[in-house]
Amino acid sequence: MTDGFHGPLLIIGGAEDKEGDCLILRRLIELSGGTDAKVAVITAATDEPAATGREYVEVFRDLGAREVTVVDVPDRAAADHPCLTADLLNATVVFFTGGDQLRITSCAGGTLFDRTIWDMHCRGVLIAGTSAGASVMSDTMIVAGDSDDAPKKCTTKMAPGLGLLKEVVIDQHFAQRGRVGRLLSALAQNPRVIGVGLDEDTAILVGSDLRFTVIGSQTVTVLDGSAIQHTNASESSPDDPLALSQVVMHILPSDYGYDLRGRQVLVP
Amino acid sequence: MTDGFHGPLLIIGGAEDKEGDCLILRRLIELSGGTDAKVAVITAATDEPAATGREYVEVFRDLGAREVTVVDVPDRAAADHPCLTADLLNATVVFFTGGDQLRITSCAGGTLFDRTIWDMHCRGVLIAGTSAGASVMSDTMIVAGDSDDAPKKCTTKMAPGLGLLKEVVIDQHFAQRGRVGRLLSALAQNPRVIGVGLDEDTAILVGSDLRFTVIGSQTVTVLDGSAIQHTNASESSPDDPLALSQVVMHILPSDYGYDLRGRQVLVP
Repeated sequence: MTDGFHGPLLIIGGAEDKEGDCLILRRLIELSGGTDAKVAVITAATDEPAATGREYVEVFRDLGAREVTVVDVPDRAAADHPCLTADLLNATVVFFTGGDQLRITSCAGGTLFDRTIWDMHCRGVLIAGTSAGASVMSDTMIVAGDSDDAPKKCTTKMAPGLGLLKEVVIDQHFAQRGRVGRLLSALAQNPRVIGVGLDEDTAILVGSDLRFTVIGSQTVTVLDGSAIQHTNASESSPDDPLALSQVVMHILPSDYGYDLRGRQVLVP
Repeated sequence: MTDGFHGPLLIIGGAEDKEGDCLILRRLIELSGGTDAKVAVITAATDEPAATGREYVEVFRDLGAREVTVVDVPDRAAADHPCLTADLLNATVVFFTGGDQLRITSCAGGTLFDRTIWDMHCRGVLIAGTSAGASVMSDTMIVAGDSDDAPKKCTTKMAPGLGLLKEVVIDQHFAQRGRVGRLLSALAQNPRVIGVGLDEDTAILVGSDLRFTVIGSQTVTVLDGSAIQHTNASESSPDDPLALSQVVMHILPSDYGYDLRGRQVLVP
């Protein structure tokens, strides 16, 4: 876990409401200044940056944001160019859209853009992301894995993420795509990490104290592997189903919380 | 849990291999006498009893069974008729096919057929079932529920099953249909029960001592709610997502086992 002060993280499981009450995105605007909010929408994950950017510009303006800027990161040269990061520096919230998390990290990892995001996080700026933009928050992220499958080693691919949240592996569209198997697979490979599975239209707001609160219409699944007594992860073949005993699981709807450091559920 | 001697139960998560090694169905035949096996295939669950019956007759004959009889249970009058149960009495294994578990219990519950199955179980005869035929084994069974959804009270419908296995709720096609949410919903409503989620082509063989062993290509998920510290199951509205803390989860591939009475994983 990281120590010291950081800005909050708003990590969204994808498919957040953009037409009704917009509970999560409305909260995002409130947290980043309300009518003074300046949103930087990062479309690095998507191969349709123009359309995705336009959609969020409209939503955030409707929710009262003062400024909404779309920042695309087409390649590593752009990610290293001061022009691109200049668009970020005044933002009161950085929002990563969905798409493919590997596009974000392969394009931006180790660049000026990456360091700028980290600096803003340390300055207390809210960093938010949905779907691929959620996965990318953790130090190790799931980039691919079978949905609706028993946990297996080979089917879950992981890679280094942006590292804003340490010792956690995030998965999104969690119940809706049957992803408990692939999150368990990540956990089996290192039970030290906490698995956080975010349902669609559901988010966690993580504070500097590493406590989070759930916001949204569905649930967050927390998988705590610290009590695991047995796993065959090291000796099994890639295609073999995994064995895991004594995983502790919590299902948390809106207003419930979790202390990532103390590994405790926070009942509202 | 039941006490006293009973025959084994072979409970299969659906879609068991019928063309390759037929690991599970081969084991069924071995356990019920090998070349002396007399199989009663119960097609009560399916609305295509003729086709389903024919398929299993062919498979079990290929696996060396001496006799395979198809017993359909079209209505309650048939289920109460001694002719129908006469077809069962010489069987060394009773096998319930897939279909709809509610067809089995609504047709056969409380009839002569139902009592005959129970008597055979007490005499030590192997009782097996796949998919709907697996769900029906427990005292309370899941009859419907959303797949790939967060756990909610209203979406999981339960009903009394055949009661061959007490204080357990079984679900099938488990990982393949993303059913952890609906099994958690059952658990939230009474954490005393043990949730057993069977993947496709995967079975548990439950002995009279209430220990089971896993057979098959995928995994069995055990959800133990005895340590649950908090749930909102009673105060939440039917459509609200459930909260659950401290569910213990085990993922068990082939050869692993579980002691349902002692709530302990058995590592091979």
